[in-house]
Amino acid sequence: MIFTSSGAGYHSESKAKEYKHVCKRACQKAVDRLRAGGMALEAVTAALIELEDSPFTNAGTGSNLNLSGEIECDASIMDGKSLNYGAVGALSGIKNPVLVARRLLSETQKGKLSAGRIPPCFLVGKGAEQWAISHGIPACPTEKMTTKFSLSGYKRNKRKMELAEQVEMKRKRQSCEHENNSACLDTVGAVVVDREGNVAAAVSSGGLAMKHPGRVGQAAHYGCGCWAENARDISLYSTAVSTSGSGEHLIRTMLARECSTAMQAENTHQALLEAMQNKFISSPFLAGEDCVLGGVIVLRCCTCGEAQRSEDIQAVLVEFLWSHTTESMCVGYMSAQDSKARTHISRLPPGAVAGQSLAIEGGVCRLGTVSD
Amino acid sequence: MIFTSSGAGYHSESKAKEYKHVCKRACQKAVDRLRAGGMALEAVTAALIELEDSPFTNAGTGSNLNLSGEIECDASIMDGKSLNYGAVGALSGIKNPVLVARRLLSETQKGKLSAGRIPPCFLVGKGAEQWAISHGIPACPTEKMTTKFSLSGYKRNKRKMELAEQVEMKRKRQSCEHENNSACLDTVGAVVVDREGNVAAAVSSGGLAMKHPGRVGQAAHYGCGCWAENARDISLYSTAVSTSGSGEHLIRTMLARECSTAMQAENTHQALLEAMQNKFISSPFLAGEDCVLGGVIVLRCCTCGEAQRSEDIQAVLVEFLWSHTTESMCVGYMSAQDSKARTHISRLPPGAVAGQSLAIEGGVCRLGTVSD
Repeated sequence: MIFTSSGAGYHSESKAKEYKHVCKRACQKAVDRLRAGGMALEAVTAALIELEDSPFTNAGTGSNLNLSGEIECDASIMDGKSLNYGAVGALSGIKNPVLVARRLLSETQKGKLSAGRIPPCFLVGKGAEQWAISHGIPACPTEKMTTKFSLSGYKRNKRKMELAEQVEMKRKRQSCEHENNSACLDTVGAVVVDREGNVAAAVSSGGLAMKHPGRVGQAAHYGCGCWAENARDISLYSTAVSTSGSGEHLIRTMLARECSTAMQAENTHQALLEAMQNKFISSPFLAGEDCVLGGVIVLRCCTCGEAQRSEDIQAVLVEFLWSHTTESMCVGYMSAQDSKARTHISRLPPGAVAGQSLAIEGGVCRLGTVSD
Repeated sequence: MIFTSSGAGYHSESKAKEYKHVCKRACQKAVDRLRAGGMALEAVTAALIELEDSPFTNAGTGSNLNLSGEIECDASIMDGKSLNYGAVGALSGIKNPVLVARRLLSETQKGKLSAGRIPPCFLVGKGAEQWAISHGIPACPTEKMTTKFSLSGYKRNKRKMELAEQVEMKRKRQSCEHENNSACLDTVGAVVVDREGNVAAAVSSGGLAMKHPGRVGQAAHYGCGCWAENARDISLYSTAVSTSGSGEHLIRTMLARECSTAMQAENTHQALLEAMQNKFISSPFLAGEDCVLGGVIVLRCCTCGEAQRSEDIQAVLVEFLWSHTTESMCVGYMSAQDSKARTHISRLPPGAVAGQSLAIEGGVCRLGTVSD
């Protein structure tokens, strides 16, 4: 089963259709892989490539431009089975950052490099780009990844900044109402469970609009952007999480790992609600912040005891939830039993204040290992 | 009180003197700040600058060179009071990387940038260098940071790599006996508690010798390189941790934060022993690794109840411990009551295998808030 998000942020009605569309395609790609016998890690990568390739999402093609008008992407991926992890930060010139993270992860699994050197799990900047190219991942000129939309956003933000600085608002705390900013948070992500019950998670982001060159957000941060951990004990659940939103807030709260830990509780809905409230909105790590913007997609599953099932069919019970403090969040999900993906734009309840309130929803599905 | 480490790795008798010396100087600098009324954050920065400036440590001047023969540094700092954090990764051309991390931390505390942008807490590569220079931190040519020792190490490692690749050992797993490599792990770090009971932690590293350009290690990773958290409840302790060793292993186990969490237990010695054993050496996150190299310095303190003390003097009870799986680790500590720092080269017990066994030691001191 695949569960994707094309980002927590602000989705106008006119944009909603595009975002739902890309989630749908990402789900389809992942399910194609799962149906072909692919593992969770392959499926989650396939979903991310589709999400990165959309010009509408803030990841890969169409990423926010930084202060210098350049694209610098963050991405990471985690395999719940091996617990291996790969990440890239501030990466330019590569169409699909998730592919580099994925490749770093697989190189880690091959053991040490010559002369006993430990392979890297996290590469940034020019060095990451060179490593990618030397490992056969093709280069892509920034111009090809820049869209009309990202360029016009850059120009608009630049004017806004200049104006703000002219009126000496520089350094002054501002209120939470920055729709343009929150609209550009749309980090994409996906979580997957395969037919064997393995989980995987991935995340990819172009980062905050007008960020300083070299700024790395939660999408490249271990424990912050994504998390995946197979059950290691009969009593434990497998969990996978992917986050979206204000990178610095998601880093300092280590939200992906916190949500994963919370998902070991009996009542998933209650546990996620409490995690979002106590470990994010009211986190002591964000004590000075009155506007904490983010969203998570969470999946947990357990393999039901064989004794309760007939024959060799072992069922996997999957609970999936999403929660966000942003105005809205676009999600999509699909299992190999489904003929098509379901997508949804989740919105805060009327009157709720973004950055201070949250929305939470979810579902349950039972996968038979024969067909899933 | 200041507690420093000039690195977990391998210290020959001939090098031991130099390493102890730099720890001593770092302690003295930090205590000077504390005596002048400085906060934990200032003191820990002063210690780190001294450790970075030593040509013998693998941080700042004298850092390991990467595959291209360049210096790329990682550093981070955390303030236990505000829980703010700053980090730089793969940073070239700045003499004291910890100063950039420190400055990122203080900029975070000033609130939002123009047009409501959230200030970065983590910058890498060229962007980090530019940010540092634009914030008044002077540039420093790489040649000035390269030492005779780091250059000869680079040449020796390069020959070793070429040889290894010639004999087709590339990709083959190797045993743990890489004294030259483990000798170059010496990430430096310090943890401090000030007279008000605030804690701070910092870490700085030149990274693994012959690392790929752009590789970022634990020293720039939130929760992995350092951690500091003031007590938030009467029943909780303030804790500060700094780690040293194989960056990838320290990242994947989030060792700094794990040790901090462990330090809330009653018996610190037992808790750290179990954390090093179960969350590091035998961590499920390093299941395939037979040689897990790292070290930690840990400090925890509690403000004793005033009822038990006469007058206004409130005592702070500090427990400090170090533990390592590397051959050796150099530590130093000093309180404002001491006339000079104590230093120690801690070594694994005879017969113990580096990467599989550990050493653990520590001490206790009581600080009166009047003189400390």
